[in-house]
Amino acid sequence: MKTIEASVEAVLIADHPETFVTRRIPETRFEFGGIPGDRHFGITRPADSRQPMYPRGTEIFNRRQITVLSAEECMDIAEKLQIDSLLPEWLGANLLLRGVPDLTSLTIGSRLLFPSGAGLVCQGENLPCTLPGKVIQEMHTNRPELTTEFVRAAFKQRGIVCLVECPGQVRQGDLVRILVNDFAKPLQ
Amino acid sequence: MKTIEASVEAVLIADHPETFVTRRIPETRFEFGGIPGDRHFGITRPADSRQPMYPRGTEIFNRRQITVLSAEECMDIAEKLQIDSLLPEWLGANLLLRGVPDLTSLTIGSRLLFPSGAGLVCQGENLPCTLPGKVIQEMHTNRPELTTEFVRAAFKQRGIVCLVECPGQVRQGDLVRILVNDFAKPLQ
Repeated sequence: MKTIEASVEAVLIADHPETFVTRRIPETRFEFGGIPGDRHFGITRPADSRQPMYPRGTEIFNRRQITVLSAEECMDIAEKLQIDSLLPEWLGANLLLRGVPDLTSLTIGSRLLFPSGAGLVCQGENLPCTLPGKVIQEMHTNRPELTTEFVRAAFKQRGIVCLVECPGQVRQGDLVRILVNDFAKPLQ
Repeated sequence: MKTIEASVEAVLIADHPETFVTRRIPETRFEFGGIPGDRHFGITRPADSRQPMYPRGTEIFNRRQITVLSAEECMDIAEKLQIDSLLPEWLGANLLLRGVPDLTSLTIGSRLLFPSGAGLVCQGENLPCTLPGKVIQEMHTNRPELTTEFVRAAFKQRGIVCLVECPGQVRQGDLVRILVNDFAKPLQ
């Protein structure tokens, strides 16, 4: 199994009741269900437009507990949008990793392991949506087209969502070991 | 997204305290965590030899809630072992499906949807291990080699494990709609 090493450049939480935008914190604890106090925390959540196979509002298992972005992919998107930088806060990220230039294509079932013993399981690619585009546009008032341009620019670079497999602490500066699920061996 | 239709040929439960072998029941209910009363039921479970990245016994999220087998793959394995039939009971299956000849290679993240509204998410291929081989061997006392032959014969045909995404009833005879995760579109 292929292993990648990455570092935690930022730990973030969405704990403001009115926005998905996150803010940096030095450390936090992953619990079953995500980060307590974060708006995506919960073992279950109501189905929304992302799960059209269930009636809207149905209580379903929450596979979108933790959002992880790649610093390299954020730089790429910023370049495409011709803006100075793309902050992970604007995209609602909980973790910003450096060292995985193609994080978004990480296979489902891959594990992210932290020095504390905590572990996440990748549940796949996140969807670019217009909400972060609006935030980015508000930061660049002379660029009204950024809302929709973001979706195109962030395609396949929007990071991944994960579930917490093993609770534990995560800190800025942590080294993360990523066990890539290569599908060659049966999932364990 | 590719869709496959299959039928539920059997619903089974492992509710005997001393064995993983399952028994047929006409119907049951999927809850968050699996099938209540089944030995694999639980939102969490202790890490074992299948998760060597965590110390044995660590409480981790349970991704092996429901075990699903393909009737066609069971027939294939039986043929390779030169036995009359391979019962899903012996392999500890919770569901036996007909209509998916290559169920074991179903991609992680694929969904199994039931008429009741219940939904499972495929968490990947199950591992052939020697435990079912022992059960099969006990049923064929003149074939001591079956214990180890099973592992080889069942390679890549051992079915999948799933987590319950949406609770609901499942009945023998149900038609199941499988939404294959083709990785072409972002995971929703």
